Amino acid sequence: MTIRIGILGYGNLGRGVEKAIRQQPDMELAGVFTRRNPESVQLETPGMTASPLSDLEAGTGAAANVDVLILCGGSATDLPEQTPHFADKYLVIDSFDTHAKIPEHFEAVNNAALKGEKLAMISCGWDPGLFSLNRLFGNCFLPEGADYTFWGRGVSQGHSDAIRRIEGVADAKQYTVPIEAALEAARSGENPELTTRQKHLRECYVVLEEGISPDSEEAERVRQEIVTMPNYFDEYDTTVHFISQEELNEEHSGMPHGGFVLRSGKTAGDQTCVIEYSLKLDSNPEFTSSVLVAYARALHRMYEEGKRGCITVFDVAPAYLSPLDGAELRAHML
Amino acid sequence: MTIRIGILGYGNLGRGVEKAIRQQPDMELAGVFTRRNPESVQLETPGMTASPLSDLEAGTGAAANVDVLILCGGSATDLPEQTPHFADKYLVIDSFDTHAKIPEHFEAVNNAALKGEKLAMISCGWDPGLFSLNRLFGNCFLPEGADYTFWGRGVSQGHSDAIRRIEGVADAKQYTVPIEAALEAARSGENPELTTRQKHLRECYVVLEEGISPDSEEAERVRQEIVTMPNYFDEYDTTVHFISQEELNEEHSGMPHGGFVLRSGKTAGDQTCVIEYSLKLDSNPEFTSSVLVAYARALHRMYEEGKRGCITVFDVAPAYLSPLDGAELRAHML
Repeated sequence: MTIRIGILGYGNLGRGVEKAIRQQPDMELAGVFTRRNPESVQLETPGMTASPLSDLEAGTGAAANVDVLILCGGSATDLPEQTPHFADKYLVIDSFDTHAKIPEHFEAVNNAALKGEKLAMISCGWDPGLFSLNRLFGNCFLPEGADYTFWGRGVSQGHSDAIRRIEGVADAKQYTVPIEAALEAARSGENPELTTRQKHLRECYVVLEEGISPDSEEAERVRQEIVTMPNYFDEYDTTVHFISQEELNEEHSGMPHGGFVLRSGKTAGDQTCVIEYSLKLDSNPEFTSSVLVAYARALHRMYEEGKRGCITVFDVAPAYLSPLDGAELRAHML
Repeated sequence: MTIRIGILGYGNLGRGVEKAIRQQPDMELAGVFTRRNPESVQLETPGMTASPLSDLEAGTGAAANVDVLILCGGSATDLPEQTPHFADKYLVIDSFDTHAKIPEHFEAVNNAALKGEKLAMISCGWDPGLFSLNRLFGNCFLPEGADYTFWGRGVSQGHSDAIRRIEGVADAKQYTVPIEAALEAARSGENPELTTRQKHLRECYVVLEEGISPDSEEAERVRQEIVTMPNYFDEYDTTVHFISQEELNEEHSGMPHGGFVLRSGKTAGDQTCVIEYSLKLDSNPEFTSSVLVAYARALHRMYEEGKRGCITVFDVAPAYLSPLDGAELRAHML
């Protein structure tokens, strides 16, 4: 059977989901829904046009064919409102990533899904998502030990945005970089305590507004504002490189990311074991999309089996992610 | 509630399970069952004695208290017979690792478990087990790509045994070693094809029988027999070190192991992504035991929820592995 996917929000993630569906033998695109004027949105799928949000509200047009709705908005304002709002009408899945607000978001989505007798999944992607799974596995298999999560080398959208808000900045890209010595310490099995500064450094590529020279006092003020910015940069060693808009466009237009989850612990017989999981992604949104569509399959199956309410990656048996059946999985992957 | 664990077979794995239970807040040891004379078996748990196999058969004595029975025998002859045999009487879990015979073993255990209205799990550990999970995840998230599994650096019991059967050999230990250049090639994202010889090499530490000198013709014959042994060594670059029994005991008595699972692929937007999972284990049997007891928890819960038949790691939602509840997991690990 074919699972028909709806996409709400057509930014990098929405476009990634549209592409990721093509790699799945049992999925097709039902529709892309947007708050913008649908006619202003050019989809990548030939012959398909975007649909207005009102169709999703009413369940009309392309929305009538949606089996699973993937919410591709942002965690700051879109998802806290959209996911609970649609969870009583559709099988919804989002990549809500504000870790501290997950319990609250779960509660809201769970209530809506139960009310509509639907199934929903929140916080699906790689962190939260695959990294969460590896934190959980690590804690279960090595109950006595230490956890380490490193991010990068990759672009942090939030940090890039924070730099762009500084006066005198025309554009910026920020890379989060794990520090090799800290990674090696975590891998050693000696469970070191690592400070924020020891674990990551921050590399900023900044385009100054026209008329500001990179060696001016004004540029130095920008640099100071960046490196001392509370929460974002002050606890890190931060380097600032002033470059031209052309260089930024040419060298820093990608959205690579990745990271490492380590669990280091001792067995009850005092033997050291280290589990390491890592991702190296040339495109953060495209990989996140690939994860989302695999979990959309699982969501659809679990709904068909009668599961209701809200779930997370923790609640999904891995076999549900695959288009292959149990016998094939046991024969070829076990 | 407390889950009471029974252990069948008291070798390295059985002793590992006995220890691993101590790290679990909700488990206790119900009994250790052995084919040997129980009085000849000295358990590590103070005040507890081993029980005869006849107790397991009859469900008497310590066997009356077993919630989950962990089968700690070998895959060659013990498990194919024991797991189906006990699967209709107990919730059983094994670490059957003969990959080619998994479908057949699954069938036998599934039939027995269904007949007795029980739940069973086979092939649980790290390979098959955690490595299988990572092969499955990799294929689901990067449907277009290549798989790589590397083992080691670690002791292969099968290869060590094969060397010990050669005339003139008193004792031996064989390490499987992943070749760094092949690992790097797999990590590159270029999906290279790697031959058996390119991926691993084999290091042998061999004690010759008394009277055979390491630089004799007889020693050279032993070396030749090792490096040309079909299936075991002939497709690998193999090094043979002749050492004394004392050195073998002092330097090579551990059972370290580990390895790497990589999935390298392209998103539908042609972006390269690499997923890597690795284990570095000072004790193979103790880590395998830790995995087994976490899955024993899951097995017990899924049985309580009404699941029957045979399952594998693919069928277990990760949350079932943890003693923490869903809200705690979402708040602290997602």
